[in-house]
Amino acid sequence: MFDKVLIANRGEIALRIIRTCRDLGVRTVAVYSTPDADAQFVKAADEAVHIGPGAPTRSYLNIPNIIGAAVKTGAEAIHPGYGFLSEDPYFAEICADDGITFIGPPPDVMENVGDKATARKLMTAAGLPLLPGTTEPVDSVEAAEEIAREIGYPVIIKAAAGGGGRGITVVRRPRDLRDAYTRTRAGALAVFKNSAVYIERYLTDTRHIEIQVLCDDFDGAVHLGERDCSVQRRHQKLVEESPGPGIPPELRARLGAAAVAGARAVGYRGAGTVEFLLEADPDAQNAFWFMEMNARIQVEHPVTELVTGIDLVSEQLRVASGSPLTVKQEDVEVRGHAIECRINAEDPDRGFAPTPGLLENYRTPGGPWVRVDTDYVPGSRVSPYYDSMIGKLIVWGPDRAACLDRALRALSEFEVSGPGVHTTIPMHQEILGHPEFRRGGVATDFLERHFAL
Amino acid sequence: MFDKVLIANRGEIALRIIRTCRDLGVRTVAVYSTPDADAQFVKAADEAVHIGPGAPTRSYLNIPNIIGAAVKTGAEAIHPGYGFLSEDPYFAEICADDGITFIGPPPDVMENVGDKATARKLMTAAGLPLLPGTTEPVDSVEAAEEIAREIGYPVIIKAAAGGGGRGITVVRRPRDLRDAYTRTRAGALAVFKNSAVYIERYLTDTRHIEIQVLCDDFDGAVHLGERDCSVQRRHQKLVEESPGPGIPPELRARLGAAAVAGARAVGYRGAGTVEFLLEADPDAQNAFWFMEMNARIQVEHPVTELVTGIDLVSEQLRVASGSPLTVKQEDVEVRGHAIECRINAEDPDRGFAPTPGLLENYRTPGGPWVRVDTDYVPGSRVSPYYDSMIGKLIVWGPDRAACLDRALRALSEFEVSGPGVHTTIPMHQEILGHPEFRRGGVATDFLERHFAL
Repeated sequence: MFDKVLIANRGEIALRIIRTCRDLGVRTVAVYSTPDADAQFVKAADEAVHIGPGAPTRSYLNIPNIIGAAVKTGAEAIHPGYGFLSEDPYFAEICADDGITFIGPPPDVMENVGDKATARKLMTAAGLPLLPGTTEPVDSVEAAEEIAREIGYPVIIKAAAGGGGRGITVVRRPRDLRDAYTRTRAGALAVFKNSAVYIERYLTDTRHIEIQVLCDDFDGAVHLGERDCSVQRRHQKLVEESPGPGIPPELRARLGAAAVAGARAVGYRGAGTVEFLLEADPDAQNAFWFMEMNARIQVEHPVTELVTGIDLVSEQLRVASGSPLTVKQEDVEVRGHAIECRINAEDPDRGFAPTPGLLENYRTPGGPWVRVDTDYVPGSRVSPYYDSMIGKLIVWGPDRAACLDRALRALSEFEVSGPGVHTTIPMHQEILGHPEFRRGGVATDFLERHFAL
Repeated sequence: MFDKVLIANRGEIALRIIRTCRDLGVRTVAVYSTPDADAQFVKAADEAVHIGPGAPTRSYLNIPNIIGAAVKTGAEAIHPGYGFLSEDPYFAEICADDGITFIGPPPDVMENVGDKATARKLMTAAGLPLLPGTTEPVDSVEAAEEIAREIGYPVIIKAAAGGGGRGITVVRRPRDLRDAYTRTRAGALAVFKNSAVYIERYLTDTRHIEIQVLCDDFDGAVHLGERDCSVQRRHQKLVEESPGPGIPPELRARLGAAAVAGARAVGYRGAGTVEFLLEADPDAQNAFWFMEMNARIQVEHPVTELVTGIDLVSEQLRVASGSPLTVKQEDVEVRGHAIECRINAEDPDRGFAPTPGLLENYRTPGGPWVRVDTDYVPGSRVSPYYDSMIGKLIVWGPDRAACLDRALRALSEFEVSGPGVHTTIPMHQEILGHPEFRRGGVATDFLERHFAL
């Protein structure tokens, strides 16, 4: 195992990684921006290095400063968390050049799965079902029109370099295609520095089901069951749970086998997630399609941890340090049900606009089977520089109904207030109490259909 | 299920019970003494009734005031927690007389298991192995001397009405017997209002292993595996874990079967614990003896919850409200390992003297599989009126080594400070790091042998 690991991230995920490092006897180095100087993850680390001002490009995306901090402190490895540099093959390459282990898949694998068009090609070769669409970038509006005609409207135009709900446009009518194509390309170029887009059939009545996989360098590859992340606003996840409501064991096995086959096909290493679209209509024979693969630890990883008892960050560290996984497929057992609610400082009534500010009062819930991953304490300030998630409430129960009841109780204990600060807590209470959500198996349009967004 | 339950207790156990009530949609009534007016459990309850000043006899042991609070608020049931009135058959009878459900076993059962001499008689009839000793109170010093001679020294004199490590005296030499007998009787009369004592053989190299049982009114009776509570100071538990290190499955099955047989024999209902002494020497053929049965939820119940996934308070409420248990024996599965450290405001270097006072700084650990049951927040005051436990740290891991490492990390995150306040945290760090404890299976004299108490 490593002696010392640098965490190139901030907030709750930095703290969560530090905790597992400490469990394993690994010393930790935090890097932090100026506004994060007093953050909990900075205090929790054995060492901390200031890497720049608040703007992410000058700190958490500042590769020279991060590499410099690793060299200076003698960190052998870097854990990138999620977001920031976590899926940047260029950063992984620089780490390798400097003799630092990047805790994630090899750069070429990251590049292949990060380019959505390439990923589609590799996954279809591995036998995974794909939605009708292109496996090559679509280079002209004329080609786009022809493809859309072929596969039928609505279609979705996706930036090849996008992900996490960014860089996608739904096109419902032929006359909107030209404009959407042009806009998506321009946006992709601006945001991802890569204008390549591809086109897929857009399904409306589908669920977002993803499979957690773990792979090592000893031919070990396991899946840890599914997460249902269908409750989304603007293609961004708000509530995640495991197992997926109503997923029969044979479907779980098929999804899991597909995910492992895909991960093996791309030469994956570490923790990753294979995302699928699943027909929400129970009569639709459980058809599913590969959507994308995420080459990082995900925000929603704790629900998998709570039902399987497996520490995903610990497995990441093991694999990166050259050890085999601790688990074999036959040892993976899903017990009970877990749900995660993302507690964001934002105002659902104003289009989920972030509401940064001072948290005068901040009280997290507790008790049996209630986990709160957060970096905030009373008096913390939600910075406008970073994403608006202030914490994750993750709750376990012996079955889904008990889990939801306990989550509602925990939400009622969660106190967040400060001048101008709104949160998603009241919305979570509505979602978890909604009859359709309680029945389970909602489609990705659930929030839009039931809440005035 | 009940509509409304009154919790006749305080501190972490009151808060813990309230949380499960809320999970189940049960409204709650807290009762509180004057110094507890600002406690968390008072805020967490739907209603709260002041029942008297700080002295327990005038508040948490004040039966008329508690019954009055239940009647006034329309509570249908009373949960007594542990300590205070939890094992008082007289209180259970008064509840019944007033049409209030006492959440615990019937009064006569409580009386039978509460009287240690009677319990010995009933358990031996049920086939449980007993240490050589008496099943009737020993009424004269001459009789005591004869019995001690017969069973051999050292012997232990126990108050029939004692429990939880109180009212017991170890006698190592015949010449100390007379004095010990007289003192134990006098002490028992003063503390328990019952001078009856019995005598048992005293074993030195033994482990404290207890079995959690659950019984309902539908012939349901299950055991949830064992807890090892051998790390004790002055016969009081400090560290508890489940499963017991090195307990082979066949021994677990035998202990469990004995506990269930004992519980059935006394007509038990609800959650209870059957305590055994187990030979610590691995060559001693795993001999074990019944010690006593506790008719309450125990301080250390969370370790069982974390390895089984079963909410013990929820099962108590179900059984008391006339429902069957949710679990059958074949569904009980122990996963991984859990440990509890009692965080007491006391000074191990001064004989564990309580150190009440203001908690200026109070930071509890967090992260995956770390549970802290506490009623304290920064600025809380540890009252000299009540026991010195300020919180319980309960940690789960996939195996014992990982669990202990995680517990050590969590202990390092636990910050408690205030003028004059000492805690058991440094001692827990020493215990969890001690090679003998890490090996597992320590006897009850572990603390005395290794720490200068």
